[in-house]
Amino acid sequence: MQTKNKPLILVSNDDGITAKGIATLVEIMQEIGEVVVVAPDKPQSGMGHAITVGNTLHLHESPIFGKEVLAYECSGTPADCIKLAKHYVLKERKPDLVVSGINHGANTSISVLYSGTMSAAIEGAVEGFPAIGFSLADYSSQADFSHCYYYVKKIALKALEEGIPKGVALNVNIPKKSEEQIKGIKVCRQAKARWIEEFDQRVDPRGRTYFWLTGEFLNEEPRATDTDEFVLSENYISIVPCQYDLTAYYALSQINAWKFEV
Amino acid sequence: MQTKNKPLILVSNDDGITAKGIATLVEIMQEIGEVVVVAPDKPQSGMGHAITVGNTLHLHESPIFGKEVLAYECSGTPADCIKLAKHYVLKERKPDLVVSGINHGANTSISVLYSGTMSAAIEGAVEGFPAIGFSLADYSSQADFSHCYYYVKKIALKALEEGIPKGVALNVNIPKKSEEQIKGIKVCRQAKARWIEEFDQRVDPRGRTYFWLTGEFLNEEPRATDTDEFVLSENYISIVPCQYDLTAYYALSQINAWKFEV
Repeated sequence: MQTKNKPLILVSNDDGITAKGIATLVEIMQEIGEVVVVAPDKPQSGMGHAITVGNTLHLHESPIFGKEVLAYECSGTPADCIKLAKHYVLKERKPDLVVSGINHGANTSISVLYSGTMSAAIEGAVEGFPAIGFSLADYSSQADFSHCYYYVKKIALKALEEGIPKGVALNVNIPKKSEEQIKGIKVCRQAKARWIEEFDQRVDPRGRTYFWLTGEFLNEEPRATDTDEFVLSENYISIVPCQYDLTAYYALSQINAWKFEV
Repeated sequence: MQTKNKPLILVSNDDGITAKGIATLVEIMQEIGEVVVVAPDKPQSGMGHAITVGNTLHLHESPIFGKEVLAYECSGTPADCIKLAKHYVLKERKPDLVVSGINHGANTSISVLYSGTMSAAIEGAVEGFPAIGFSLADYSSQADFSHCYYYVKKIALKALEEGIPKGVALNVNIPKKSEEQIKGIKVCRQAKARWIEEFDQRVDPRGRTYFWLTGEFLNEEPRATDTDEFVLSENYISIVPCQYDLTAYYALSQINAWKFEV
């Protein structure tokens, strides 16, 4: 914890510093602690865990969240933002919590792989900080974030109080606002699912073919009740603890049995 | 397997279609089966599992690998390449193997998160195909890929023969060429490590500050002998089976013990 018992909270996202979701998240975090923002200067959705290695990075202080909040907009990816925050903006100060979001759209199941929101949180975990990515399962341009306040604050306070295991980032998905009250919060696992892509093939005014990525989400285990997909569909908030050790331990012995004779 | 018992092999990478590593990989795979290439039209290193959602995708047939190889260059990321290969280039044909690389530089340990090479392989696994990412632990511009032939072919043939568990992509790292003979192949886990970033801060001709991401790699468990880092340092080829279920199962009970009282 930082001076005056106020925790230091680093905020980022992938929809860019002007998005509604990060404004909501900053407002909530200001009720909890001292807020520092380093967020992309443009939308970075679908950037996965990309980092900027072949190009320069630019960082500009931004007045967007008022005098109380030190905020920077960054030309890079969400993962770049967290790296620059740690090594340049905060330097010797350590955040008590890294939060990312609130993403405009769900990041359940396989989407965690492609999600810039979660890459900021996972980068926080790599750096050894407690980290949470928040996403709202509402894709409409008029998405209402107001019901998130209560739950996001509750989860952030719990994380500060209880601590998150080292190397873990929480992936929190919040149901879209509806007339039905949110039923509660459930800790669960990532659903096995994938996107059935369909590329929308078009021809540009110069006669050249191009594509838009589109498609449908397919939950491959719709009957499992312990997944983020199921929990969210039942109007609960889902929390999946995520790790960045990708080793498939269960597959080690099978691959080990291959006889290479080199 | 495809017609004439020749396996269909889909090749991609992240260094771009003109890189030396993919030329090597295509040559090796032509000795095994029918090769189809869909690779980025420019370097995509560090792109992690990024996909192109807010922009158009372009795909052009390329004669770069000769008449025997159907090859396309794609404006997108490595993950985009695999998606376009499956849904547009191959359509109803299923690859027997997806290979990515050979990356110019190692992708051990935490680098798997940022690696475009491995994102192509993991995207292959997501789509249900046996998939392998190959990387050469040599960063020099004159990197010699010649010693890779024997081992890459051996590993690809084994994968075709034995099968790779569903949802798993192999992360193969090959030591740089030296006078010492490679000792063999070891199946191992991802080392716990991270990058200690140092941002190289400079001022452009117009007086504006910018940064280059740089830094040093820190192996946090240098004494563990079952990691990819260790194995590679001992002049073995490392194989880590990787999964895309990021759920930290060991952390579920701890987070579940949080009492939210909502």
